[in-house]
Amino acid sequence: MIIVMKSKAEKRELDNVIEWIKSAGYEPHVSQGVERTIIGCIGDERGKVVLMAAENMPGVEKVMRILQPYKLASRETKEGNTVVKVGDVEIGGPKCVIMAGPCAVESEEQLMEAARAVKEAGASILRGGAFKPRTSPYSFQGMGEEGLKLLARAREKTGLPIVTEAMSAPEVELVEHYADVIQVGARNVQNFPLLKEVGQAKKPVLLKRGMMTTLEELLMSAEYILASGNDQVILCERGIRTFETSMRNTLDISAVPVLKEKTHLPVIVDPSHAIGQWQFVLPLSRAAVAVGADGLLIEVHPDPEHALCDGAQSLKPEKFRNLVAEIESIAKIVRRGYAKADGAN
Amino acid sequence: MIIVMKSKAEKRELDNVIEWIKSAGYEPHVSQGVERTIIGCIGDERGKVVLMAAENMPGVEKVMRILQPYKLASRETKEGNTVVKVGDVEIGGPKCVIMAGPCAVESEEQLMEAARAVKEAGASILRGGAFKPRTSPYSFQGMGEEGLKLLARAREKTGLPIVTEAMSAPEVELVEHYADVIQVGARNVQNFPLLKEVGQAKKPVLLKRGMMTTLEELLMSAEYILASGNDQVILCERGIRTFETSMRNTLDISAVPVLKEKTHLPVIVDPSHAIGQWQFVLPLSRAAVAVGADGLLIEVHPDPEHALCDGAQSLKPEKFRNLVAEIESIAKIVRRGYAKADGAN
Amino acid sequence: MIIVMKSKAEKRELDNVIEWIKSAGYEPHVSQGVERTIIGCIGDERGKVVLMAAENMPGVEKVMRILQPYKLASRETKEGNTVVKVGDVEIGGPKCVIMAGPCAVESEEQLMEAARAVKEAGASILRGGAFKPRTSPYSFQGMGEEGLKLLARAREKTGLPIVTEAMSAPEVELVEHYADVIQVGARNVQNFPLLKEVGQAKKPVLLKRGMMTTLEELLMSAEYILASGNDQVILCERGIRTFETSMRNTLDISAVPVLKEKTHLPVIVDPSHAIGQWQFVLPLSRAAVAVGADGLLIEVHPDPEHALCDGAQSLKPEKFRNLVAEIESIAKIVRRGYAKADGAN
Amino acid sequence: MIIVMKSKAEKRELDNVIEWIKSAGYEPHVSQGVERTIIGCIGDERGKVVLMAAENMPGVEKVMRILQPYKLASRETKEGNTVVKVGDVEIGGPKCVIMAGPCAVESEEQLMEAARAVKEAGASILRGGAFKPRTSPYSFQGMGEEGLKLLARAREKTGLPIVTEAMSAPEVELVEHYADVIQVGARNVQNFPLLKEVGQAKKPVLLKRGMMTTLEELLMSAEYILASGNDQVILCERGIRTFETSMRNTLDISAVPVLKEKTHLPVIVDPSHAIGQWQFVLPLSRAAVAVGADGLLIEVHPDPEHALCDGAQSLKPEKFRNLVAEIESIAKIVRRGYAKADGAN
Repeated sequence: MIIVMKSKAEKRELDNVIEWIKSAGYEPHVSQGVERTIIGCIGDERGKVVLMAAENMPGVEKVMRILQPYKLASRETKEGNTVVKVGDVEIGGPKCVIMAGPCAVESEEQLMEAARAVKEAGASILRGGAFKPRTSPYSFQGMGEEGLKLLARAREKTGLPIVTEAMSAPEVELVEHYADVIQVGARNVQNFPLLKEVGQAKKPVLLKRGMMTTLEELLMSAEYILASGNDQVILCERGIRTFETSMRNTLDISAVPVLKEKTHLPVIVDPSHAIGQWQFVLPLSRAAVAVGADGLLIEVHPDPEHALCDGAQSLKPEKFRNLVAEIESIAKIVRRGYAKADGAN
Repeated sequence: MIIVMKSKAEKRELDNVIEWIKSAGYEPHVSQGVERTIIGCIGDERGKVVLMAAENMPGVEKVMRILQPYKLASRETKEGNTVVKVGDVEIGGPKCVIMAGPCAVESEEQLMEAARAVKEAGASILRGGAFKPRTSPYSFQGMGEEGLKLLARAREKTGLPIVTEAMSAPEVELVEHYADVIQVGARNVQNFPLLKEVGQAKKPVLLKRGMMTTLEELLMSAEYILASGNDQVILCERGIRTFETSMRNTLDISAVPVLKEKTHLPVIVDPSHAIGQWQFVLPLSRAAVAVGADGLLIEVHPDPEHALCDGAQSLKPEKFRNLVAEIESIAKIVRRGYAKADGAN
Repeated sequence: MIIVMKSKAEKRELDNVIEWIKSAGYEPHVSQGVERTIIGCIGDERGKVVLMAAENMPGVEKVMRILQPYKLASRETKEGNTVVKVGDVEIGGPKCVIMAGPCAVESEEQLMEAARAVKEAGASILRGGAFKPRTSPYSFQGMGEEGLKLLARAREKTGLPIVTEAMSAPEVELVEHYADVIQVGARNVQNFPLLKEVGQAKKPVLLKRGMMTTLEELLMSAEYILASGNDQVILCERGIRTFETSMRNTLDISAVPVLKEKTHLPVIVDPSHAIGQWQFVLPLSRAAVAVGADGLLIEVHPDPEHALCDGAQSLKPEKFRNLVAEIESIAKIVRRGYAKADGAN
Repeated sequence: MIIVMKSKAEKRELDNVIEWIKSAGYEPHVSQGVERTIIGCIGDERGKVVLMAAENMPGVEKVMRILQPYKLASRETKEGNTVVKVGDVEIGGPKCVIMAGPCAVESEEQLMEAARAVKEAGASILRGGAFKPRTSPYSFQGMGEEGLKLLARAREKTGLPIVTEAMSAPEVELVEHYADVIQVGARNVQNFPLLKEVGQAKKPVLLKRGMMTTLEELLMSAEYILASGNDQVILCERGIRTFETSMRNTLDISAVPVLKEKTHLPVIVDPSHAIGQWQFVLPLSRAAVAVGADGLLIEVHPDPEHALCDGAQSLKPEKFRNLVAEIESIAKIVRRGYAKADGAN
């Protein structure tokens, strides 16, 4: 961390800051510039956030962080990529993994039809929500445990592992019992009690970036899970909120390579929630694979016009089949070799 | 809700949409324009969100909502303003209410010193966090129940009611036991299980807007609480996330009058979290009162340089005293009369 | 356009609005809903913006637009795609076109080396700035006409057509004299005198989206050029400004397919300015081609470490060669067939 | 400027960077931390932007700026506040100055009625646009020089100085001839040729912040004007673009005190364009004065329902009268003393 003094800071203000740095357990390193004096604070990184309080001290202009605040999620801590195994499926390995299914589990018939369709088309994991976070208290809130049981039945029939959401810490145990991957939704990306709870689960976690979450905050949320003992975390970019209103959210495609430079965790993309309109899901899926995503999360519904949730962005099964085919040709080019890019221009 | 057909939509596509509207229980009202056909969907509003799925139907260009999706929070449902009573303190009435105290409860000494100081300066409610949502798992996470007990003791000593945060549904019961007002933090504004739980509590709720929550979404979150049976909700604007990085967040001051036009609930402002630097808390507090806020939430710490949390934005007690004095002169002008502005230009 | 009345609007207020709509030359079409009365305004679209003033009338809740405000840029006006020809190069046709070169023309040596390199690697058009919009008055402002002459010389040597920026209306004539394509930069996307001027030029225009321009505004800026008589317009997505600070800007990859649904104009992508760091230019270029962009604009510099402008995001020639090769394999898959996606799910 | 090396940077990479810093004319100052080596670059600040190119060098993690990039606009360069004189009116002095009038000059009758009304109500300067930047080429584009002549006539009749916009460098001479203050609009905040041109004018400049402009960029645009020789610059906050769509733009009220800490230039607020709806202009004006703005820019129209531009946000004269009265009471409290806040908490 670096503390920048005001141009007119007095000697006693500087001394005061230096004293304070020492008392906080760090070693000050003063550097006199032409227009500013800056002080490097050398020491163990964790907890350094308290040094931010220096901004309240007389003579201090600003405090600047040098290091990223996450550790376990960082490439500096772990060489190579984390590969998350879900049954036979590997996320973060050479294959691009497709997870697909309806937004919400609505009925046995709907789920089974969707499950069969995505299986046939080539998806590797079935998605479907039993507990649904909805903006309106008057919207369909999901089937609850009954939905989880239907998901388990769909797994039996198709052999597809399932990913489904837990909305709060107390739900985790139940979801963990039925699911193969526990999803933490975009609105819960900084629900810290939930993060700690899934951090103690024995199943992999799919952590969605919030609409308002920076990449650094996303990695800090992953850090919560890792620090609680669960190292099987999959990150998911699903669109951020910006000024643009032509689409539901703005897919931050750059997040994929930027995250992959910073972290060893796998990164997948959910184009359906990002764009919100089914006709753009195919081109965005192509882009996601081309940019280097380890997988896709796609909404597929046998009858989108009557979906209880997110019908506008759901693909019909036959469109989804085409998507899988196109994706595979691009994945072949991009993931060929599957080597980390070397870092010299 | 209005469905706009594509300019080249065919007759059978239009018929299909009309049929579908009827089957969903709404009455279609077709209007032929020069370049577009639009269909009004007349009927009960709640649950109309399923009509959004029409965007997946052939020939449909877009679906536009006419009504706001909240009901109990709306001025259309309730005439007059909701006044939330916390002991003798009225929030939403003629007086501008000041809530103040440290970001986090750190020790008995720190809390008592802060409590005495804000009481003397003229604050009406004491704030302080016992459960702290922190971006980093390595930061101070709050004193937990021990902190709640200290808050209760500070209330005994000063007579000030206390407001403190519950971070998850299971914590609500405990927080309700000690607190006078239960706070739902910005990161939990769409934590729906938590909203339902505080909706069943017997204490008022202070609901903070999230960093990237629209006003409509904030009102929908309030609607969750109201629909669960608790009509004592205070809204709080605390800064939103934008492209500007000179300050911690961008205080959306316009949110206050815009919210007050839409809802009967009281609206307060937290300038400390919005701006993140103590030296701007005073001017922003003046602005908040001038724009019509029903109250302020201010961070005050007896020793900000050694605060475990948010030291940079905390005021020292003497600065806070000045703030209260300035605020009162402005409040006198603005809240004089205290009548709703009439709506004709 | 639709006018929504307040729930408690009085009869005389409604009558007043109806009268006013007629006097403005539109035909009102009243539709009585359960909770709101809405009035459709039927008539010629252009200039309807004056109807927005209805928001100032008593009893009016809001005014909603039904139609997009652009005409010439719209797919409704022109069937098929506009293909912009620059010498032998076709932008918007079956081939994905690569434009590359240094951010700024710095010297004859630098430009010639860059030009030769991008030509050999397979680029079709040479880019380079002679007039540079710089945030700081103290930064290198470009070589001016001398830079244009060097560009012309580079064209002679390599045969590559050149694209370069005009920053203001009076510069257009000069730039048009030397350039093959006139660029309008991101900061000038709503410089209306400039748009009108390039609208009268006889050369194609490359119009960059601003950092905070909506797609609709971008199309309105294109409309200025088209309405002034120049129908050779290429749109360019180059990243938007959001809350995320890990990269220079957020590449709005969805803009490509969404624009291509709305307009017949070609759409290219500038990943270099979007991301601001050279090591991410390759994956983003792949994504841009995969999503359906008609071309790429890439910064290439023979010696990025000594560039006077944007060195951090410039590729060295050998990296650029790899990029062209990768791009071609993806383009083969995506642009195969080159048919517009049909619009039924 | 500080260069942060990667954790695994090699010795020869560090040496290479040090060599390069020296060759660029700066003195390197190496500081070895526990996890990172950082290098301070000591030397003259201007033009240091070329050091950003170091991000392209092997072993470099990132480059961080220490100093703000503006000089003449900074409080470090000039003690005390700049007070801009327009006739007898002082902007930046103890009085809060109100500028008001219609968005666009539409006719002699409209302008004279507006001018008389704002004069009577207590405004000090008349605003009105003759050249109008409009999103649509089909909207009213302003009366041009005829409008400027009407403004001059209104000045004769009322004695009010006038402020009006120049949209491009070639227009400046004409506007300067008629106007007392030359406005640079939000969309032109980074129109550098225009900034250089008004920098050579002999009249004060009202520089509006763009919808997408950071405070630092705004100050850099002011720097262009100051560096060109014109030190009479007034900054204007007029709302920024964010994700929130309940209002036209988000008024960044914090910009006022933050700017006033960084610069000696006066700062005014335009609440009309920020919010876009007349009924909120009063509370936002109160907030702007309370936060410390040196003035207001308010749209007033004698007949908003028939305005050719921005009718929805224009106040009728009688509403404006009330506004002036309320503003004065608040200004009395806030600008009393008119001393710069001292900087110690």
